[in-house]
Amino acid sequence: MQLAGILHRPESEDTAILADHQVLMRLKTARQDIEQVELYYADMYLWQEGAPMQHATMHAGLATQGNQYWTLNVDIPTNRLIYAFKLTDLAGETLGYGDEGFFDDTAANWAVTGRYFHLPYLHVSDAELPPAWVKDTVWYQIFPERFANGDTTNDPANVQPWGQGPVKRDSFYGGDLKGIINHLDDLADLGINGLYLCPIFTSPSDHKYDTIDHFEIDPHFGTKKDFQALVDGAHARGMRVMLDAVFNHFGDHSPQWEDVVKNGQNSRFADWFHIHDFPVGRNADGQLNYETFATGAAMPKVNTQNPAVQQYLIDVTKYWIEQFNIDAWRFDVADEVDHGFWRNLCGALRAVKPDVYLLGEAWHSSQALVNNGQFDAVMNYPLTQPILVLFNGELTLDDYVGKTNLQLMQYRQPNQQAMFNALDTHDTARMLTIFHDDTTKVRAALTLLMLLPGSPCIYYGTEVGLAGGPDPDNRRCMEWDETNQDLDLRQFVQTLIAWRKAHSDFLATSAISWQVQGASLTLTRQ
Amino acid sequence: MQLAGILHRPESEDTAILADHQVLMRLKTARQDIEQVELYYADMYLWQEGAPMQHATMHAGLATQGNQYWTLNVDIPTNRLIYAFKLTDLAGETLGYGDEGFFDDTAANWAVTGRYFHLPYLHVSDAELPPAWVKDTVWYQIFPERFANGDTTNDPANVQPWGQGPVKRDSFYGGDLKGIINHLDDLADLGINGLYLCPIFTSPSDHKYDTIDHFEIDPHFGTKKDFQALVDGAHARGMRVMLDAVFNHFGDHSPQWEDVVKNGQNSRFADWFHIHDFPVGRNADGQLNYETFATGAAMPKVNTQNPAVQQYLIDVTKYWIEQFNIDAWRFDVADEVDHGFWRNLCGALRAVKPDVYLLGEAWHSSQALVNNGQFDAVMNYPLTQPILVLFNGELTLDDYVGKTNLQLMQYRQPNQQAMFNALDTHDTARMLTIFHDDTTKVRAALTLLMLLPGSPCIYYGTEVGLAGGPDPDNRRCMEWDETNQDLDLRQFVQTLIAWRKAHSDFLATSAISWQVQGASLTLTRQ
Ligand SMILES: [Ca+2]
Ligand SMILES: [Ca+2]
Repeated sequence: MQLAGILHRPESEDTAILADHQVLMRLKTARQDIEQVELYYADMYLWQEGAPMQHATMHAGLATQGNQYWTLNVDIPTNRLIYAFKLTDLAGETLGYGDEGFFDDTAANWAVTGRYFHLPYLHVSDAELPPAWVKDTVWYQIFPERFANGDTTNDPANVQPWGQGPVKRDSFYGGDLKGIINHLDDLADLGINGLYLCPIFTSPSDHKYDTIDHFEIDPHFGTKKDFQALVDGAHARGMRVMLDAVFNHFGDHSPQWEDVVKNGQNSRFADWFHIHDFPVGRNADGQLNYETFATGAAMPKVNTQNPAVQQYLIDVTKYWIEQFNIDAWRFDVADEVDHGFWRNLCGALRAVKPDVYLLGEAWHSSQALVNNGQFDAVMNYPLTQPILVLFNGELTLDDYVGKTNLQLMQYRQPNQQAMFNALDTHDTARMLTIFHDDTTKVRAALTLLMLLPGSPCIYYGTEVGLAGGPDPDNRRCMEWDETNQDLDLRQFVQTLIAWRKAHSDFLATSAISWQVQGASLTLTRQ
Repeated sequence: MQLAGILHRPESEDTAILADHQVLMRLKTARQDIEQVELYYADMYLWQEGAPMQHATMHAGLATQGNQYWTLNVDIPTNRLIYAFKLTDLAGETLGYGDEGFFDDTAANWAVTGRYFHLPYLHVSDAELPPAWVKDTVWYQIFPERFANGDTTNDPANVQPWGQGPVKRDSFYGGDLKGIINHLDDLADLGINGLYLCPIFTSPSDHKYDTIDHFEIDPHFGTKKDFQALVDGAHARGMRVMLDAVFNHFGDHSPQWEDVVKNGQNSRFADWFHIHDFPVGRNADGQLNYETFATGAAMPKVNTQNPAVQQYLIDVTKYWIEQFNIDAWRFDVADEVDHGFWRNLCGALRAVKPDVYLLGEAWHSSQALVNNGQFDAVMNYPLTQPILVLFNGELTLDDYVGKTNLQLMQYRQPNQQAMFNALDTHDTARMLTIFHDDTTKVRAALTLLMLLPGSPCIYYGTEVGLAGGPDPDNRRCMEWDETNQDLDLRQFVQTLIAWRKAHSDFLATSAISWQVQGASLTLTRQ
């Protein structure tokens, strides 16, 4: 038996509380090593008073490059569980596995409490279950400056004609909230039931990830009245609304940073950033004397460990929930912000809106950001990006399956259902361009996306064949001229979304299996 | 290469932040499979701008039954890291390992950001480093009713002569706070610098784990003035003081439960417990209609998810810190209480005393209770109990080493240094009795305890040869008659404690290795 490959960890994603009294158990073993896994389990106190140990056979689940996963859904009437695994390998050898490691399969060993893993007491609140609506949601991501211009009176100076390329950094085309409102019926018709808006707060840029004032709508996008109409209009159509906040760094035109630039260490915001020396700027060696996002001077990193900063940012996020009834927040560069802050912020937001969806941006496996009082989910690029590589023929079917299964096993099932699954976003090249304009591949990739657990998202325009390379070309103006839209593709996406929504419960929870035969890959959900 | 055995997980105990800009990396592989592990690492942004990838060879560390651990202390100047492992097996085969799994060792693969694990940004606050004083502390656990009777005027009715056996449940002998105060010099002489007191709050029992009023000292133990004198006397001698709180359940004589019994669902405490039906009691089938600790009717489980309960318990714990300046809290049955509550409570206590030591009771591996805003450490029975089994000759040397190393690898190094390592407590038989009165084994076990990382604890009387079987016999009166004390043993313990305290920094951080040769086990710290 390959002991090195056998692993289980209580109160990790290996033990997902699905509901009161119900836990989904996982065990990892080496591939092609184990014939059978049985789970032995009991309430410790009742067992010590003579109640029998129960047992059940686990199911072989997904496999990664090196490991086989085994799963079992267990009912736990008293909410307390001790348990251990009895493994039988392909040669018929048996072994026990529990909290102290491996033990010989003898009655004497199975009688010792210390041999067992513990789930001391299940509190369903500790499951931190994501809002149930998320798994039924198909999102549509809007880059507001480029979606639709509904009010030319609020256009920036030097606005360019809609759709005129090439798109440059800090091109302006006049898109705004009114434009989104005007097209809510189109989005409802497409089947969308969640809007994810890139930042809408005041900012000098087109992308607005360099916020000036988190409490104000950028005037080029409209007014708070417009935003209220947008939220109400979305809700009236059964759509949730998610806003985007950048708390890792502020723009260098934010009043806080400008005050630091002006007043140095006497600024009341001097502790709002990570500043090594005053005045802020570059040392003789050319190094910045403050921390930033990446290496750019214009995005000073925020000191989210400062309680005053925490309160300000909590107030910001509560404000848009309490005043406008938004349903979700997406947090930019969440992985570079401290966990202590996220715990405080997420707790405060769930206190005002228990079913708020809290999503962190990350580009890699991010178990540390999910649960433990933090996010419901992260942007799930590690699951979605291999789909693009697969359909471009740059990944073997086996490698695709291995990578995908690795990601599917990284999180608890309820979180996996709430993961934000996008094939393209404002941060990536557009799918159609990655696929060299092959719309068949776009259809295939979207279909596979819809078949996987998680909350899928369509980047604006993908449904009508909008193309675009890396930033800023991925932020072209939405194509509204039907003669230039791929209406067949739109029809396909509409049908796909309708099908997905009709089966979202099934797709969230049903078993996944893959069969690779030659050049053919079969995905079965059952 | 045994892929199944290779595992690393960012932002888990595999990546312990030791200090600002410093991380202790761990990787797990199969035993006897890997010849060399190299870590490749860089700041992602600087690397993408052309800075070179760095690399360093990891050290072979501890081994468990199936796995070999590899470690490396890495300096991270910018606080941001991407990294991947290059593994070379005994046959000379090489392979890369990172966030997407295993990859061929080609330059093309090493050039892809997605191949690497991420530590997006290290915030030393997220390390949640335990107080530095804990690793330098040798604790002494006192069961107050049995340590010393310093004031016969406060004795319970029907008090028995000191030391008269057999000890029964709810025997009373008159021990109290004044008795502890009277012996502070003895404890200082022994070398003790931490006092852990079992509960001292009002309660009808001798053990006082069934609290009536968390804000009051039990009158049989003394007064708040006595307690203040005890804390001040301890502090004057360089000793920290830890109190013990039971928040999983209340005693059935608590005013809250009595109110529920009297007023049923109209009680203002009806939501303070987990009650299925009113009036509280037994159903026709004999089952209790409320949740309890274990299966006893007298210990109703507290609803720690109720915000009012949370505030009450936070107020309790803050009170004893703010009014009496205690240094630590030990929480009984911590593993059966919800994590959300512990996060709120621990956060509130660290806000009033940043270097407070917060310890949870658990009897098994408990990574879910440590960090993530919760405890500094847990009671480390899985590390200490095998020592007893080892010296009783019931465990092979290899099995002892495997079990011990498994536990040593369960937590981050800073938490491992703060683990509460006790060979016997009020909840176990006494070591001397487990060892069939062989004091040589007591000396050996204490010596091994002192050589391991963690914060060691002596159960009162162990140092003078106090014996006792399981509860209640393990709670015999302290032996104060020197003619009945094992003074040689006390001298040995005194010397051992002095040596431990002189080398506590070294013992907390130095490498551990074990050599088994026949019947000989060598532990090397270097
Ligand atoms: Ca406009
Ligand atoms: Ca007394």
